[in-house]
Amino acid sequence: MRLAELSERSGVSIATIKYYLREGLLAPGRQVNATTAEYDEDHLRRLRLVRAMIQVGRVPVATVREVLGHVDDDSLGRTIRLGAALWALPQVPEPDTEDEYLQAARREVDRLLETLGWSNARALITISPAYRSLVVAVATFRRLGYDWDAGLLVSYARLMHQAAALDLDFVETHPSEAEKVEAAVLGAILVEPMLQSLHRLAQEEESARRYGFE
Amino acid sequence: MRLAELSERSGVSIATIKYYLREGLLAPGRQVNATTAEYDEDHLRRLRLVRAMIQVGRVPVATVREVLGHVDDDSLGRTIRLGAALWALPQVPEPDTEDEYLQAARREVDRLLETLGWSNARALITISPAYRSLVVAVATFRRLGYDWDAGLLVSYARLMHQAAALDLDFVETHPSEAEKVEAAVLGAILVEPMLQSLHRLAQEEESARRYGFE
Repeated sequence: MRLAELSERSGVSIATIKYYLREGLLAPGRQVNATTAEYDEDHLRRLRLVRAMIQVGRVPVATVREVLGHVDDDSLGRTIRLGAALWALPQVPEPDTEDEYLQAARREVDRLLETLGWSNARALITISPAYRSLVVAVATFRRLGYDWDAGLLVSYARLMHQAAALDLDFVETHPSEAEKVEAAVLGAILVEPMLQSLHRLAQEEESARRYGFE
Repeated sequence: MRLAELSERSGVSIATIKYYLREGLLAPGRQVNATTAEYDEDHLRRLRLVRAMIQVGRVPVATVREVLGHVDDDSLGRTIRLGAALWALPQVPEPDTEDEYLQAARREVDRLLETLGWSNARALITISPAYRSLVVAVATFRRLGYDWDAGLLVSYARLMHQAAALDLDFVETHPSEAEKVEAAVLGAILVEPMLQSLHRLAQEEESARRYGFE
């Protein structure tokens, strides 16, 4: 397809597509003559992913380039490739001070992982942003003086594990390795806000069921 | 307790507590003489909630005041009181254009709610920010050209309903109505980032289980 059709099918303006091409976020089309290039379905798919990251995820251009570098890296095994692409996305900032709450939260999260039997990811944990952000979230709760039964965290984690299995089932429906990693990145950008909306809607439904409207 | 102890037990500085008092986010203490006021456990609990909203949730002061107004409004039934407090929190911005994707997304979300049997919340839906943000998320997916099996959304929604039931079980462990609403606000601020971290960690675990590290 020509640039005009690529623009129409993606809903992305020609000027923006040219910008993505210049920034190396989209591979050049196949040049058919001096002024015309031809694009294919791979371009369209990649363009939509770039659009989702920039427009919905507000991911900076340099970070998009880094994520795509991992998506396209055939030398990586699937687990590491998925991990590298997702970890390159913007993360919760590191806490700047190491205090007693962070240390206690780290022990609490380690106990949680042991209870859950999430032993396969142990090799990733020292470098995983998700591990760090969970520790920060637990430390924040504790620092504010809130307490809860450890079983509650286990229950939430089991639900999120079921969600993760659904995510990967969806990822596996995509044919190539690169498309699988793309689908995972897209999930991180688009599925999380959707889960959050569903969660709040579910709270309203459950609240109405339990307490009515009186 | 005196102001100094309130500061120490909450980890909030005296200057910040005085600012919250001036802004009406914290009720005045009981004046014991011209220069000294006495604070109790209710002050401590409220101070921690205000701190969580401002520091973790980055909620503006005027919005905190509005949320607390609903928390303290005894005239509301529990469902409406929970809803009003949570809806006052910052939300996904309204889409500024009504287009075919939004209309289609609204129909899709309505079908989803029917499939789920979430009929109790129907009375809330026209005014619920969670409904609007879900419609926006689905429309974004569609506008970017992505497709999925409707069953996937149903599965995610069922998991989030289980999470919502856990939330409300936790909310119900708090004695008074005002404390229940406070716990719900806190959950919206602090539990959601925790769920997101658990979700990502679960993806890593599940990925390592399925694909190993080769």
